[in-house]
Amino acid sequence: MSRIVYVNGEFLPEEEAKISVFDRGFLFADGVYEVSSVLRGKMVDNEGHLQRLARSLGELKMDAPCSNQEIEDIQYEVIRRNELEEGMLYLQVTRGAPADRDFAFPKDTRPSLVMFTQKKSILDSPAAKKGIAVVTLPDIRWRRRDIKTVGLLAQSLAKQAALEAGADDAWMVEEGFITEGSSNNAFIVTQDGKLVTRGVSSDILHGITRKAVLALAERDGIEIVERPFTPEEAYEAAEAFSTSASSFVMPVIKIDDRVMSNAAPGPVANRLRELYLEMALKEVSQ
Amino acid sequence: MSRIVYVNGEFLPEEEAKISVFDRGFLFADGVYEVSSVLRGKMVDNEGHLQRLARSLGELKMDAPCSNQEIEDIQYEVIRRNELEEGMLYLQVTRGAPADRDFAFPKDTRPSLVMFTQKKSILDSPAAKKGIAVVTLPDIRWRRRDIKTVGLLAQSLAKQAALEAGADDAWMVEEGFITEGSSNNAFIVTQDGKLVTRGVSSDILHGITRKAVLALAERDGIEIVERPFTPEEAYEAAEAFSTSASSFVMPVIKIDDRVMSNAAPGPVANRLRELYLEMALKEVSQ
Repeated sequence: MSRIVYVNGEFLPEEEAKISVFDRGFLFADGVYEVSSVLRGKMVDNEGHLQRLARSLGELKMDAPCSNQEIEDIQYEVIRRNELEEGMLYLQVTRGAPADRDFAFPKDTRPSLVMFTQKKSILDSPAAKKGIAVVTLPDIRWRRRDIKTVGLLAQSLAKQAALEAGADDAWMVEEGFITEGSSNNAFIVTQDGKLVTRGVSSDILHGITRKAVLALAERDGIEIVERPFTPEEAYEAAEAFSTSASSFVMPVIKIDDRVMSNAAPGPVANRLRELYLEMALKEVSQ
Repeated sequence: MSRIVYVNGEFLPEEEAKISVFDRGFLFADGVYEVSSVLRGKMVDNEGHLQRLARSLGELKMDAPCSNQEIEDIQYEVIRRNELEEGMLYLQVTRGAPADRDFAFPKDTRPSLVMFTQKKSILDSPAAKKGIAVVTLPDIRWRRRDIKTVGLLAQSLAKQAALEAGADDAWMVEEGFITEGSSNNAFIVTQDGKLVTRGVSSDILHGITRKAVLALAERDGIEIVERPFTPEEAYEAAEAFSTSASSFVMPVIKIDDRVMSNAAPGPVANRLRELYLEMALKEVSQ
């Protein structure tokens, strides 16, 4: 079945879902995006995603295409038209398609808004049951990783390099410390049970799932330390995992050549995944 | 008059020149580009641009859409259909539009090829006669600036910030040294007549015009020193200029608050601009 894709006011079959070649998303990566997970036809923590979208737009002095309420109405219309029960809703806003290419911001150009769905089994995830392997790679991204832009080539290259190295994902390293995964935030649990993850700054994306998982961990009595950690520390950790809107909590069972937590998802990762799923399912059944 | 734009085998009116929203150029900035200047209907140093294109593609393990000869044939067809006498031919190659969004490289996806023209007066440039003002700004780009990707948001932000500061362009600074301009290479001429510009590495774009201008300078007996220079050195320099395919040699008469070369294009910049124009005109009249 062909998906129905939303492009600037129109709901189109995916084969016809096109954007001007002058769109600044295509010519300059001058656009931002969000991915909200969908469970039982409803979005999880979408308010957090739309808040972050507004922040990304603000940092880039980009106009919003419409109000957050209007965006959400369109999101649900896209979900409805695609009969999506479980998966993701992808949303992208760009600075629009001016009459010609120019590095300077265009005047009087309406932002573009594109949305599509992606079917994915999130609740029942074989990868989460088994855990994934990551490799560490240099973080070569720009300095504003707190803005969720479509300038994702470095992340794509990292992901691809990880796959070619026989792993599932990359954890990126800068000045000796892990920043984050290719499209997720990185966590370790130390041998004495502390949950360690890098604090938010312009060095990493301010993960919506990261935030929710930290709140759940705190409520569960887990000690949290927000600080950068090294690959060596990660090798010696009791367990490791990553968080993202599309995978929730994903246990990591291998980092480079080091096998973690006896090659199985660790208890803290499993517990936090369980708590997150519980919260998400509660949210979508309201 | 509406331009004719080339998109994957079709010549389309610009209003209809569209690309799939699943194109990786739009979703991941997973594409590269080149801009060749056009004088008297012919491209200048296009072989250099196509060589660099091939290098960019190679670094990203991206397939070429067709041979360089076929690309050039299409370039000239686009120029012909648009009756372009003077201006630029813009060309973009992306990893194409796979069936769905995924950070990993798609398999069996054909690269996309897009081209369009931009009319511009290059020979008779009021800006080059007067000189431009630049401001220095932090270089926040990724680490592979030698690959000419469409991930240009940092450059766009720098250009926009320069315009808002009342200047014409930005020179970007990293670790105390100027890397390059927002879409051009940066040069100074020291008080003792040496031409200084940063050597090529992954820190800067390997400018095609930069290379040609250095060759002309050498032939003209100008001493060249390829090394990084600081903003302070630039303030104290005898003159400054930038080079790019769309502006050739552009004199800089102000850097931040410091007025250069008595607020007029310096003799070395003027001389190199003259030599470059002479060479370019000779090339296009062959």
